[in-house]
Amino acid sequence: MGKLYVVSIGPGGLEYMTIKALDVIKKSDVIVGYTKYIELIGDLIKDKIVFSTGMHGEIERCKKALELSKDNTVSIISTGDAGIYGMAGLILELKKDEDVEIIPGVTASSSAASILGAPLMHDNCNISLSDLMTPYEIIKKRVEFAAKGDFVISLYNPRSKGRPNYLMECINIIKNYRKGDTPAAVVKNALRNEQKYKIFTLDTFDDFGVDMLSIVIIGNSLSFVKNGEFITPRGYNINRKG
Amino acid sequence: MGKLYVVSIGPGGLEYMTIKALDVIKKSDVIVGYTKYIELIGDLIKDKIVFSTGMHGEIERCKKALELSKDNTVSIISTGDAGIYGMAGLILELKKDEDVEIIPGVTASSSAASILGAPLMHDNCNISLSDLMTPYEIIKKRVEFAAKGDFVISLYNPRSKGRPNYLMECINIIKNYRKGDTPAAVVKNALRNEQKYKIFTLDTFDDFGVDMLSIVIIGNSLSFVKNGEFITPRGYNINRKG
Ligand SMILES: C[S@@+](CC[C@H](N)C(=O)[O-])C[C@H]1O[C@@H](n2cnc3c(N)ncnc32)[C@H](O)[C@@H]1O
Ligand SMILES: C[S@@+](CC[C@H](N)C(=O)[O-])C[C@H]1O[C@@H](n2cnc3c(N)ncnc32)[C@H](O)[C@@H]1O
Repeated sequence: MGKLYVVSIGPGGLEYMTIKALDVIKKSDVIVGYTKYIELIGDLIKDKIVFSTGMHGEIERCKKALELSKDNTVSIISTGDAGIYGMAGLILELKKDEDVEIIPGVTASSSAASILGAPLMHDNCNISLSDLMTPYEIIKKRVEFAAKGDFVISLYNPRSKGRPNYLMECINIIKNYRKGDTPAAVVKNALRNEQKYKIFTLDTFDDFGVDMLSIVIIGNSLSFVKNGEFITPRGYNINRKG
Repeated sequence: MGKLYVVSIGPGGLEYMTIKALDVIKKSDVIVGYTKYIELIGDLIKDKIVFSTGMHGEIERCKKALELSKDNTVSIISTGDAGIYGMAGLILELKKDEDVEIIPGVTASSSAASILGAPLMHDNCNISLSDLMTPYEIIKKRVEFAAKGDFVISLYNPRSKGRPNYLMECINIIKNYRKGDTPAAVVKNALRNEQKYKIFTLDTFDDFGVDMLSIVIIGNSLSFVKNGEFITPRGYNINRKG
């Protein structure tokens, strides 16, 4: 009897993987994953059977991982947390009687936040701007409710070639509910080699080459920047801004 | 010159800490933390100077950590992700010229999700029901906007002795916008020794001894349960329910 681990590898570098994730990868015979992510953990899996596919091979990858897990110990890897816009859902939807365990990890909003300061200290939400499987009308509505609810907002998949304008359109929706000096930051390749980041405000927000390797975090009504650090205070009763 | 690490230790057991968190704890001279969390990592810090305080010693703990970090390598530890309702914010607010680095970790919603299945696969939000620093009126408004926006909702700090009814009141707000058969789950002590969990629906949701060691996750309009697993599908275009 084999087993399938759905393994969250965190933002990128091996260091930000959990000890459990490292252990199950080490004891797996087969590693399945998107080619780019396989590269991120290359050193770890030199002596293993690797099944990797490009960008749109998700369903194929999941089916292969499930099939191989009947007789092998298999790890299918996912960046960040496999349970947030990752591989966990599809695996469980396709699963029949295979033995599956999900290993959680550090999601991109937490990774990016740790670089920026402490923007997620109060109620916050994750929204994906990808319209591959969600109509843009629903995405925009959701951004609007998040803005109305004064949530700190993390935008995953903020921009791709096919939808160059969604990000600025969503920033503009948020501006209807928040002051122009609200901090709004971009982190590209958080905790990976090519990490870059910049803290803007809603008014000064600009392109910064935001792409699919970036995440955007927008503060709530109390967020502020102090010595270059983006902070959302924990409470509403004490206003530590002044 | 010393240094202060704000270290996320993940849900509890050492295994779900990142390799980086383990490394910085190992190389620290002083460990600062809430007594209960210090116990969770007890084995690791036997030979270190430990400064621990009870529940409400947060500000004292942060000041001490900052002060000691002038001449020592110090780790102040926080469960889950230090950047989500954790110690990162207060440290940065109190910090003057100390050298501080935040090490992100696996937050409770990701940990709980990995046990339940894949409930957080689409847009989701974290809301704390603690009214210590946020008026209950704001919390309820936020729950309502999250419900209207069809977010998967993770409720942190869902119940304490001082506010026994908030959780059911918030569930009732959500019921105004979602069907009664929407999955709603409780996980207590996720990935710790005494782990317990149960998947209800909004209609059947009951007490289950929910306390401050628990988190509650409520699905969106497409979430479903399959073979005991709580799944939110990735997309809105394909309805995989049927
Ligand atoms: C398909 S989602 C996968 C999310 C992943 N499962 C997680 O929990 O972080 C891909 C998006 O995650 C974000 N992302 C993932 N890793 C990142 C990193 N290291 N730095 C910045 N953004 C990242 C980007 O917004 C990217 O477009
Ligand atoms: C002050 S908050 C700290 C959150 C933490 N920084 C994190 O990111 O998980 C405490 C709340 O987190 C949730 N929590 C933390 N660890 C948990 C675990 N292992 N199982 C279930 N809930 C947990 C509970 O809702 C608890 O009331």
